[in-house]
Amino acid sequence: MHSPTELLIHIEQAIKAKTYPGHPASLYDPISYIMSLGGKRIRPTMLLMAVDLFDCDIQKGMDAALAIETFHNFTLIHDDIMDNAPLRRGKPTVHEKWGVNTAILSGDVMMVEANKHLTEVNIKVLKPALDTFNQTAQGVCEGQQLDMEFESRNDVNISEYINMIRLKTAVLLGGAMKLGAIVAETSTQNANLIYEFGENLGIAFQLQDDILDVYGDPEKFGKQIAGDIIANKKTFLLLKLQELCTDLDLQQLVKQFSNPVAENKIRNVMDLYNRYHIRELAREETKTYLNRAFEALDKIDIPESRKAQIIALSNELMSREH
Amino acid sequence: MHSPTELLIHIEQAIKAKTYPGHPASLYDPISYIMSLGGKRIRPTMLLMAVDLFDCDIQKGMDAALAIETFHNFTLIHDDIMDNAPLRRGKPTVHEKWGVNTAILSGDVMMVEANKHLTEVNIKVLKPALDTFNQTAQGVCEGQQLDMEFESRNDVNISEYINMIRLKTAVLLGGAMKLGAIVAETSTQNANLIYEFGENLGIAFQLQDDILDVYGDPEKFGKQIAGDIIANKKTFLLLKLQELCTDLDLQQLVKQFSNPVAENKIRNVMDLYNRYHIRELAREETKTYLNRAFEALDKIDIPESRKAQIIALSNELMSREH
Repeated sequence: MHSPTELLIHIEQAIKAKTYPGHPASLYDPISYIMSLGGKRIRPTMLLMAVDLFDCDIQKGMDAALAIETFHNFTLIHDDIMDNAPLRRGKPTVHEKWGVNTAILSGDVMMVEANKHLTEVNIKVLKPALDTFNQTAQGVCEGQQLDMEFESRNDVNISEYINMIRLKTAVLLGGAMKLGAIVAETSTQNANLIYEFGENLGIAFQLQDDILDVYGDPEKFGKQIAGDIIANKKTFLLLKLQELCTDLDLQQLVKQFSNPVAENKIRNVMDLYNRYHIRELAREETKTYLNRAFEALDKIDIPESRKAQIIALSNELMSREH
Repeated sequence: MHSPTELLIHIEQAIKAKTYPGHPASLYDPISYIMSLGGKRIRPTMLLMAVDLFDCDIQKGMDAALAIETFHNFTLIHDDIMDNAPLRRGKPTVHEKWGVNTAILSGDVMMVEANKHLTEVNIKVLKPALDTFNQTAQGVCEGQQLDMEFESRNDVNISEYINMIRLKTAVLLGGAMKLGAIVAETSTQNANLIYEFGENLGIAFQLQDDILDVYGDPEKFGKQIAGDIIANKKTFLLLKLQELCTDLDLQQLVKQFSNPVAENKIRNVMDLYNRYHIRELAREETKTYLNRAFEALDKIDIPESRKAQIIALSNELMSREH
């Protein structure tokens, strides 16, 4: 079996080897740019781990892995436009560098590139691979739409939030791993179980992100600490607090939304979080989804020894402080 | 064989029968909205005509026809954002009605919907159908990018312009007809010839549009007459004039670009067009592409009688005054 580090090397090589048409340069340069910005490449790595899990040559999964990574980066270009984000991985976003119109269009053609990668999978599995890919892509769009809608809503509940992060981020991890299973030509049952594993792991990741934003090591986290609090972002932590706190504390919380002094705002909101044990509750919720993930993995009908690698990587990712 | 009117009825029925998920409504409402705005449905009609041409049940082409029409409407949503257009078919554009962010995202999910339609074609032809669809989609994006770039360039020549309209509009017509041929399981040679027919016909259509914008019957044309002149749009007519005219006339033309009185501007530019016989030259160019289209159709290895319908529709579309 291959270690995540080995898989990452293969993925980076494949991304480097991929060339785009030279003309029109302004359409394709943003694609090379965002693909070269790096990142953890979690989705293609997990996809190839799924291929490996079912004892299939990982090279057979490379086209699907590139499809998923290309699709993911396309969503980043469009999300950054919608979020009006100036930076992505510490570098100017595509729309900052090339303008919004080119960013829309480069994103569009990147989606075509993702589909082109996917059509290169073994023709025997092309139809189920496409079905999974399209369902995944659709979920991601729905999740982004819900995320935008939540910004202007004041009645978002926890289950809506979980559904939003499921669609926006977890479906893509589940879909990536299912694609790996499909390419490896395992049973439908195994493919569905690895999807369940990936989706639940993805929800756990996102919940952990919510926790780390507030409680992560600022030096390791790499983002502005408590950025979610400053932005009044409806995270699991905030929604849980709103669910549990007294009317008086709710009034205090709502006051903080317009507190212009970031330092005070963070301290006051964190005081409320601490008073209601929000961090612990968020950890419990995270654990619930992590357990669901491992239960699904457990049911997969292959020798236990083959699962060790995926379990190790998941635990490593879940114990990160940034 | 089916008449274009019959085909259109089938297409409209299929579009009406298609339902999108109800949630999130703001993601899917724009799709139903733009799909219901109508239009001539030229691309799916020509696709089904190609299916019919090769003696195949037109219902077998319906998924591909919906894929092409959905893709086309997705490009309209994104193009309208880029062009900052307030109206589409006389109704508010999607970004005017729902905002730019939702318009970006609805467009994205519409591309997924187009791909989903396409995966429903007969599995025997799925791979070539996808290859044609992706190549077509990529061409359309390239054409839109070139079109945007031309706006700020002063050195666009005729062959670059023809290539731009080929990519932006003609490739989609060619691709649609090739998809029809693929679904009908005709020979690769026939599929390539019908592509050539569609692409050249598409270029002829666009050149005719350039002519009609200036010389069309204002009552029938339905758009602001000479809108291209007012907007200094680099059409075949303008580029041909720039290619042919004396330095003195070029100075006169450039002066018109900033003429604020639309009526005078139109008259002065049309005077130049008339002096250099630009309308006639544009008609000749149109005829060249139309001839190429019919030459390709001529080479298609089927009884001539089956081609009558496509020839009639093409001639009808080419003799339109609006």
